[in-house]
Amino acid sequence: LMGTMATESTPRLLFRQLFEKESCTYTYLLADVGHPEKPALLLDPVDKTADRDLALIRDLGLKLIYAMNTHVHADHVTGTGLIKTKMPGVKSVISKASQAKADHVVEHGDKIHFGNLFLEVRATPGHTLGCVTYVTGEGPDQPHPRMAFTGDALLIRGCGRTDFQGGSSHQLYQSVHSQIFALPKDTLIYPAHDYKGFTVSTVGEEMILNPRLTKDEETFTSIMKNLNLAYPKMIDVAVPANLACGFQDSTPEARASA
Amino acid sequence: LMGTMATESTPRLLFRQLFEKESCTYTYLLADVGHPEKPALLLDPVDKTADRDLALIRDLGLKLIYAMNTHVHADHVTGTGLIKTKMPGVKSVISKASQAKADHVVEHGDKIHFGNLFLEVRATPGHTLGCVTYVTGEGPDQPHPRMAFTGDALLIRGCGRTDFQGGSSHQLYQSVHSQIFALPKDTLIYPAHDYKGFTVSTVGEEMILNPRLTKDEETFTSIMKNLNLAYPKMIDVAVPANLACGFQDSTPEARASA
Ligand SMILES: [Fe+2]
Ligand SMILES: [Fe+2]
Repeated sequence: LMGTMATESTPRLLFRQLFEKESCTYTYLLADVGHPEKPALLLDPVDKTADRDLALIRDLGLKLIYAMNTHVHADHVTGTGLIKTKMPGVKSVISKASQAKADHVVEHGDKIHFGNLFLEVRATPGHTLGCVTYVTGEGPDQPHPRMAFTGDALLIRGCGRTDFQGGSSHQLYQSVHSQIFALPKDTLIYPAHDYKGFTVSTVGEEMILNPRLTKDEETFTSIMKNLNLAYPKMIDVAVPANLACGFQDSTPEARASA
Repeated sequence: LMGTMATESTPRLLFRQLFEKESCTYTYLLADVGHPEKPALLLDPVDKTADRDLALIRDLGLKLIYAMNTHVHADHVTGTGLIKTKMPGVKSVISKASQAKADHVVEHGDKIHFGNLFLEVRATPGHTLGCVTYVTGEGPDQPHPRMAFTGDALLIRGCGRTDFQGGSSHQLYQSVHSQIFALPKDTLIYPAHDYKGFTVSTVGEEMILNPRLTKDEETFTSIMKNLNLAYPKMIDVAVPANLACGFQDSTPEARASA
C-alpha cells in the first residue's frame, strides 16, 4: 500500500512510558520516527490522562493510528473512547477473546504494524480470559532487546489476580511460562501497573526473582487462592465501560452509518 | 589500580528508573554489568524507598559503591544516610558548591567512574547554588544516546523553582543553556521529579517544547518571579537533614575515628 520511499525508511523506535498515579497504570507510547509519517500507537491509555497523552503526541509530531488495550481493565476506565472522540481516525484494538468491542480485534500470532515496526500478539490468558501480551517484533530492523508489554499477566515481581473476569491460575501459569518466559532473557518487561515505583524488569530477572511464578504450578495456584484481595473498587464501573469504549467512533462517516 | 582483565571487560549499562510517589521523586540506578564486580551507583535516593532500592541492588547482584545527590533537596529526605548505615562501604557524593557533607565532594568537570562506565559532573546552579547535572560519558564504550540526570535544574517541560537555597533565575537560565542544551539533541533527560507521569525527555525536545526555557532570559526571569509557589512543605526538615546525612558512616573504622 505504501510507496517505496516510505517502506524503505529505517525504522527507529520512539518510546515513552507514562504513569497514571491514581490507578498506578502505565501507558506506553511507541512510534516509528524513522518513517516519514511517524505512525504511533498508545498502549493501555487511561481516561484521566488521555489529554496529557494526546498533547505529547501532537507536540512530538506523531500520527496516532492505534489506541490499544492488553485486556478489559477492572481498575480504571480506558482512554480509548475519549481518544477516538478527540482524535478522529484513531482505531481501537483489543483481543477477540476479550469479547470487548473495538475497531480491530486481534488474535494470537497477529502482527500490528506501525510504520516499519510491529508488535506481535501473544495470547496470555489467566488474569482475564482475553489478556494478550504485545511483543516488539523480531528482526534486524526491530528494537533490540525486545520489549514485552505484559498487561497484568506478568507484573514486576508479581502478577495480576485470577479471581475475576474469567481468570484462572492454571491458565496464567501456563501463559507466562509458555509465552513470556520463552522470550530471550534480555527482553524488557513493561507491565500495565506497578505499585512500588518499579518501571521495568526483564524476562531473565522475573524467571529468577518473581516470588509467584518461579514456584511450581501447584504452589502458584495455592498462593493465588490465598491472596484474600478486596473486591476491585472500580470493577462495576470500569468493566462495562471498557467492554464498549473502544468502539464509539466520532468520525462523520461513523456517525452517519451508526 | 585495577587488573587488566577487569579494565578490558566491555562496559554494559544496567539502568533503572525508580519512582517515589509521595514526593514524585525519581531515583536512578546505574551499574556496569559488563564488569565482573557489577559496580553500581544510586542517584537521588529517597529515605522512604531506600529498602526497596537496596533489595533491588542485592537481587541483581550489584555492588553499590556510590549514593549520590544532584543537590540538597528541599522536598524529601535523601536516602543516602540510611543506605550508608544499611550497606557499609557505600560512599556518598554531592557537589562541593552544595556545602553539604559527603564522603566525596565533586566539582564541575570531575568524572565519577563505576567499572568502565563514568558520569561527568556539570555545574548547573540556579535552582540551588550547588546543583549539578550528571551526564553519562562520551566515547564508543559509553551509552548512546547519552543520558543527563538533571536534578531540578531541568524538568520535563519545566524547571525547579529559584526562590530558595541560593536560587537564581539568571544562573538557572545560563546553566541550562550552556550545560544541558549544549549536549547532543538525542541526549535523554532524566529529571529528579515529575508530577504528571512523564518519565523521560530529550535535549532536542526541551529545546523546542519547554514552556519556560525556550523563552529569552528576561521572559524566563519574569515567569519565575511570578510563580507564586507556596513555601516548600518539607524544607525545614529536609534541608538540614540533607546537608548532613550523606556524612554519617556506620563502618567500624568511621565510628572509631568519629
Ligand atoms: Fe487488569
Ligand atoms: Fe530540589
